[in-house]
Amino acid sequence: MYSVDLNSDMGESFGTYRLGGDEDIIQYVTTANVACGWHAGDPMVMDKVVRLAKERGVMVGAHPGYPDLMGFGRRKMVLSYQEVKNYVKYQIGALAAFTKSYGLKLQHVAPHGAMGNQCQYDEEISSAIVEAITDFDKDLIVYYCAGAVLGQIAESKGLRTASEIFADRAYMNDLSLVPRKMEGSMITDEDAAIARCVRMIKEGKVTALSGKELDIKGDTLCVHGDGPKALAFVQRIRGAFAEEGIEIKHL
Amino acid sequence: MYSVDLNSDMGESFGTYRLGGDEDIIQYVTTANVACGWHAGDPMVMDKVVRLAKERGVMVGAHPGYPDLMGFGRRKMVLSYQEVKNYVKYQIGALAAFTKSYGLKLQHVAPHGAMGNQCQYDEEISSAIVEAITDFDKDLIVYYCAGAVLGQIAESKGLRTASEIFADRAYMNDLSLVPRKMEGSMITDEDAAIARCVRMIKEGKVTALSGKELDIKGDTLCVHGDGPKALAFVQRIRGAFAEEGIEIKHL
Amino acid sequence: MYSVDLNSDMGESFGTYRLGGDEDIIQYVTTANVACGWHAGDPMVMDKVVRLAKERGVMVGAHPGYPDLMGFGRRKMVLSYQEVKNYVKYQIGALAAFTKSYGLKLQHVAPHGAMGNQCQYDEEISSAIVEAITDFDKDLIVYYCAGAVLGQIAESKGLRTASEIFADRAYMNDLSLVPRKMEGSMITDEDAAIARCVRMIKEGKVTALSGKELDIKGDTLCVHGDGPKALAFVQRIRGAFAEEGIEIKHL
Amino acid sequence: MYSVDLNSDMGESFGTYRLGGDEDIIQYVTTANVACGWHAGDPMVMDKVVRLAKERGVMVGAHPGYPDLMGFGRRKMVLSYQEVKNYVKYQIGALAAFTKSYGLKLQHVAPHGAMGNQCQYDEEISSAIVEAITDFDKDLIVYYCAGAVLGQIAESKGLRTASEIFADRAYMNDLSLVPRKMEGSMITDEDAAIARCVRMIKEGKVTALSGKELDIKGDTLCVHGDGPKALAFVQRIRGAFAEEGIEIKHL
Repeated sequence: MYSVDLNSDMGESFGTYRLGGDEDIIQYVTTANVACGWHAGDPMVMDKVVRLAKERGVMVGAHPGYPDLMGFGRRKMVLSYQEVKNYVKYQIGALAAFTKSYGLKLQHVAPHGAMGNQCQYDEEISSAIVEAITDFDKDLIVYYCAGAVLGQIAESKGLRTASEIFADRAYMNDLSLVPRKMEGSMITDEDAAIARCVRMIKEGKVTALSGKELDIKGDTLCVHGDGPKALAFVQRIRGAFAEEGIEIKHL
Repeated sequence: MYSVDLNSDMGESFGTYRLGGDEDIIQYVTTANVACGWHAGDPMVMDKVVRLAKERGVMVGAHPGYPDLMGFGRRKMVLSYQEVKNYVKYQIGALAAFTKSYGLKLQHVAPHGAMGNQCQYDEEISSAIVEAITDFDKDLIVYYCAGAVLGQIAESKGLRTASEIFADRAYMNDLSLVPRKMEGSMITDEDAAIARCVRMIKEGKVTALSGKELDIKGDTLCVHGDGPKALAFVQRIRGAFAEEGIEIKHL
Repeated sequence: MYSVDLNSDMGESFGTYRLGGDEDIIQYVTTANVACGWHAGDPMVMDKVVRLAKERGVMVGAHPGYPDLMGFGRRKMVLSYQEVKNYVKYQIGALAAFTKSYGLKLQHVAPHGAMGNQCQYDEEISSAIVEAITDFDKDLIVYYCAGAVLGQIAESKGLRTASEIFADRAYMNDLSLVPRKMEGSMITDEDAAIARCVRMIKEGKVTALSGKELDIKGDTLCVHGDGPKALAFVQRIRGAFAEEGIEIKHL
Repeated sequence: MYSVDLNSDMGESFGTYRLGGDEDIIQYVTTANVACGWHAGDPMVMDKVVRLAKERGVMVGAHPGYPDLMGFGRRKMVLSYQEVKNYVKYQIGALAAFTKSYGLKLQHVAPHGAMGNQCQYDEEISSAIVEAITDFDKDLIVYYCAGAVLGQIAESKGLRTASEIFADRAYMNDLSLVPRKMEGSMITDEDAAIARCVRMIKEGKVTALSGKELDIKGDTLCVHGDGPKALAFVQRIRGAFAEEGIEIKHL
């Protein structure tokens, strides 16, 4: 029997600004990565998303990012080890205040945007994040992009991990995501995307952009909830997984 | 036997900006009110102050404020009940990540600046703060300025409280602090200031600016640590309390 | 012959967050009030809106607000005279860098949100704004809500002014807008709204929520551009004004 | 006859946070680089420094930086060309509102911190800054660190430039500053520092950390004003320059 977690980034609205359809996508996922007010989100938004998650039985994780609201945390910043550690710890704690208020346990941490991308290879950033998590709560699961050094470092410190895969993104030979600017970076054919997901989960294999066959671990699949097309695609994925005998459940 | 807690606002530096002498004042107090990154403070500063507090056996509380770094949280902002509740909760959680990391328990919450001042009479703001605290942890102590409605509301909800008094500030007839712009707002004579403190703690009495005798409860005395003069004054207070049989200890 | 300026708030997006349909509404107005990065907007957005305005021959004004991105500048903040003056001056200058770059002249200043609302009665805030404008450029036009003390103070200092009216808002007896929370605050019947506009512009009269007839000056009409319904309404207004012999042109 | 401009970074305070002694150092320099509210400074501070500069006849330039108050603009951020251009333009305009108010002309632009450091080699960032300046005012002088590509690009676009040198910093063979972490990065011997300055200005030569002799152009010398020691050093420099026949005057 196969199983996979379905996660989505949520709580990315800020003040009067709306981003993403949290109320919609939360009906189809098992886990929410919630922004913590630095690159997106604010306490009102965090409160709302955590309440929705509680109502739906969805697991909640922190989605910490760089202190760059204007750039949505997608711009690389060169921070020190201590800065990364303390910035991540701060954001985890802030979100945990809301899960605690609703009687939930914070389940995981998934670094966002540029910080997340740097965890593919950067051992210092990855170690800083792992230390922040270890300091705060050793039971937190570390979500990492399949192949990222963050996963190895987290496991070496005794933390539980989840390898994240993407339905709509092509892979380089080293399992890093094909940069969005490169041709072929997005898997636009929905049938192909779903077939890839099924193969990643059941066989642990994916074909790189180069054609090379790669080993990949898919514990959790990231889906998007912005707009009707994205929602329809998530529903298709759920249907396909049911047919393929892949159970969708949280970690 | 009489006793009092000595508290001081700390962790008010931000990035490259230094404010207050945390390393100095922490040697003379029993409790630290730590800024949480909204009106002052940042995760690096919070980490440092909490570590210092652990080393010195000093209790740590959250000092949440308005989202107004440029105004140091001293400017009144008109927020909704939900905004106050969630903003305070966020800040408490963020700080609690650092106390948890150091194996400490967050002891209390003391609202800062304009938010704190509004707690003298504003039942809505006070209730929002109390609800944030109750949601997060019913064991947290609520620090309130002597006479503030915040104290009554916190007690009515079953929370422990501490009535805060000031050595260097004069009182109006209703126990609110004499506004800084008014003549006589500051008690500049150190001997008089210390005598007032002793009387507040031992007799529960203070003379208002008007000359009227007021009842006052002094569980915790706020002292400042910015500069050599402030530090010397704290040392004088400690000496005087020893002579007067007032034990300085945390709550 | 009657004439009126049509203005709309623009440039309210921020980073990855989209707000309002600047590209659409700019086709129907003669003047844009552009957010300056404090309550909304950022330099990328400001650059884009000013470029659009240049392409369409639309006049550009600054729309300064409080330093409160999380509250979209709609929350009252208690600032000093000097703070208001310097905050407004900073924002005017920042926007003027973009108009200057495109060879445009900044036309006006229209305070946003809570700051704008306070200009109805608050002489100190109004004077601070007027002084900021006078310091920067005496040719700038001051947009004020009909009846606001800001208009009187600006005129007393020799500045040009424009009295702003709203198609969709009901008025109190003192010409202040009926608060959104009160019943009857919005004029939801589009025919009635347009008839009110025509009467304000041609007769200088409007009926208050109370039924009282009020004198009102309508130099510039504020319209919204968020969503297809708002755009359709602006087009209806333009059609009605053409029939009524009201020329739409900038000041 | 030799001459040199003496410049200093100013206006780096923020809200309640004080940084640097603007009132002191402004008495000894001919030019001020004023922070514009992004990495440091706020409108109250900008207003004050520009007023001081007017009183002392000191030239004012903009000191734009990255949007990173928490990192004081010293942390590298990876921004796009358009982002750098518009962020710099915004900051120039904001400061120009204050110079304009005091009847002064903005004299120059000097990139701050990490942005400034990247101008040593990064042609894209340098070009973006130059385009922002050219768009705003072709008469602005571009301050660049001696040897930086920013100077070449500014000159190729027809802008006036000033090559900045440092009294207290050692140089690499390519004229970049020796990183602060490396041994020998600071010239701690004051006599040696002054002798180096005199030689840079009069002979256009400096000895690199490696011992190699380098050509260097010194139009403007950067001095610091934080603390009594820094001030005393500036006074020594002024005395030495007088003896050496180097006139201190703005560009």
